Amino acid sequence: MRIIKHLESVAVIGGGSWATALVKIISENKIPVNWWFRHTADVEHLQTYRHNARYLSGVTFDLIYVKPSTDMVAVIEQATWVILAVPAAFVESVLQKLPSRIFANKFLVSAIKGMIPDKNCLVTEYLENNFQVPLAHQCVIAGPCHAEEVALEKQSYLSIGATNIALAERFCALLRNRYVRATPVEDIYGIEYCAVMKNIIALACGIAHGLNYGDNFQAVMVSNAMLEIEAFLQAMHPGPRQLSGSAYLGDLLVTAYSQFSRNRTFGNMIGRGYSVKSAQVEMNMIAEGYYAVKIIHELNKKLKVNMPITSAAYNILYERISPPVEIAILKEKFN
Amino acid sequence: MRIIKHLESVAVIGGGSWATALVKIISENKIPVNWWFRHTADVEHLQTYRHNARYLSGVTFDLIYVKPSTDMVAVIEQATWVILAVPAAFVESVLQKLPSRIFANKFLVSAIKGMIPDKNCLVTEYLENNFQVPLAHQCVIAGPCHAEEVALEKQSYLSIGATNIALAERFCALLRNRYVRATPVEDIYGIEYCAVMKNIIALACGIAHGLNYGDNFQAVMVSNAMLEIEAFLQAMHPGPRQLSGSAYLGDLLVTAYSQFSRNRTFGNMIGRGYSVKSAQVEMNMIAEGYYAVKIIHELNKKLKVNMPITSAAYNILYERISPPVEIAILKEKFN
Repeated sequence: MRIIKHLESVAVIGGGSWATALVKIISENKIPVNWWFRHTADVEHLQTYRHNARYLSGVTFDLIYVKPSTDMVAVIEQATWVILAVPAAFVESVLQKLPSRIFANKFLVSAIKGMIPDKNCLVTEYLENNFQVPLAHQCVIAGPCHAEEVALEKQSYLSIGATNIALAERFCALLRNRYVRATPVEDIYGIEYCAVMKNIIALACGIAHGLNYGDNFQAVMVSNAMLEIEAFLQAMHPGPRQLSGSAYLGDLLVTAYSQFSRNRTFGNMIGRGYSVKSAQVEMNMIAEGYYAVKIIHELNKKLKVNMPITSAAYNILYERISPPVEIAILKEKFN
Repeated sequence: MRIIKHLESVAVIGGGSWATALVKIISENKIPVNWWFRHTADVEHLQTYRHNARYLSGVTFDLIYVKPSTDMVAVIEQATWVILAVPAAFVESVLQKLPSRIFANKFLVSAIKGMIPDKNCLVTEYLENNFQVPLAHQCVIAGPCHAEEVALEKQSYLSIGATNIALAERFCALLRNRYVRATPVEDIYGIEYCAVMKNIIALACGIAHGLNYGDNFQAVMVSNAMLEIEAFLQAMHPGPRQLSGSAYLGDLLVTAYSQFSRNRTFGNMIGRGYSVKSAQVEMNMIAEGYYAVKIIHELNKKLKVNMPITSAAYNILYERISPPVEIAILKEKFN
């Protein structure tokens, strides 16, 4: 029997494709991972067949390092790091039954690219307010990174945001391998907001594509999006940041130019004339960007930043303005 | 018989797809265009069938406004504006027989996305040095704009660079229509260099793609490219510029993410193991980026800016370093 001794141990909450990619990366570094699933059937499938039944099922896990379970408290208690990788809309319901002190002395890592609906706050802010996790104990994982390409071991880059840069560096060390480079970034709120806003832009790109706008328009949309993201971040959290970096522009590009982005696909259906409801039914889910549009729009009521793309998406999704009309207005605002 | 009176008249030098798109835009605004072709057969084809025989042949021209000719001096003499739209490598041979004073009192517009080989200078600089065209009489046209999408009348945006912003505004007025928005930009050298450098990046993206790197890597390459372009421009022509704007980032995106980019295709072949020579033969042309790599590399010998992507492309194309080796080194330089 192999004896595992590693100073680090990780709990991963969530069974989606991004969670699966992260478990692959970390467990291949011989770091023990306790992996929480909602359903017993998924735990049993993983234990029997050594892959996730639902996502990236080509990835085989070493069960010496990967321990699936539906017992969230046990999963968390045995770990030094807790990675949250559920859709933002489910964070509250997933965590609500946990003891309030469960995260004491843990390091929390958000792999979530969205904000908490209704509370209109970032995941880091939610953890600080509701579980008293100090920001100095938190990291966020930003792309640019398709989970599918991690599964294929294609060269990928992760940016780890943290105010505590030593903590970010320590987490980076869990991720680095032959095909993953990880870099600490101090601007934790900036990259967390950027990860949220990129979904809005991908959704808007999808709408334009659904309306038959082409690559010329998309390039201009993404350029203008960078100006919009920069203005919002400066209003929300002023400070120097290199917006052309991977954590910002790179993350936006990998989403906005991806055929696989659920946000782009959702937008595309809206552009083609589907209602929000029928696009949901067809996709069997709601894209993160759908919530993000409303949250960022509401936060911006105070900031009053010029955000033409977010406003257009809001008007289409929540005010039922016709997509062709709204995008025709939007296109006049771009240079 | 219709009588045409327009204060403006335009000469277009070159019969490629970008020239064809520009003639479409301008002539549809009922502005007379004298269009120079190298071959009589192309002139006759256009006169007979009302479309360019070789490029964007779905575009039909109104011969009231479009006058094709092989007589370059006549084409230029009758026009107030002269648009140059030949590959950069051919500028010298195309213009060499012209009288030295032919451009006196003309406004010159470069639609060329490359630099003059051997001279290592921009087209604007070449015109200033060799034909005494003052910079105040010059404009450059920058994307982001696929000619193919102009042919389809998809919403497009052009940036017109000029030190003389009133002149840029005057040229913009020739271009604006239902599907084209045109904006003056003061940073003429910046957008001209950016148009050149984007071809290098597209070529490098193609090499990586040919080596089976994926979308994650491409997003990081493009992000890092923006840092490289910014550093070069600041060293070459320091000054404030909004690099996220359409004229810079937008132009880069439309090229680097295009399946149709000849630079990306050329790079892709190099990545797959073709020699430069066999890629040339296969494509029946050399991509602008091939020359741009050498010129920017040479200019940077004095500037000594950190340009890892350009250096990697140079090493592959001119020093015969193996693409897998060079890109493996490059990937360690990205964050």
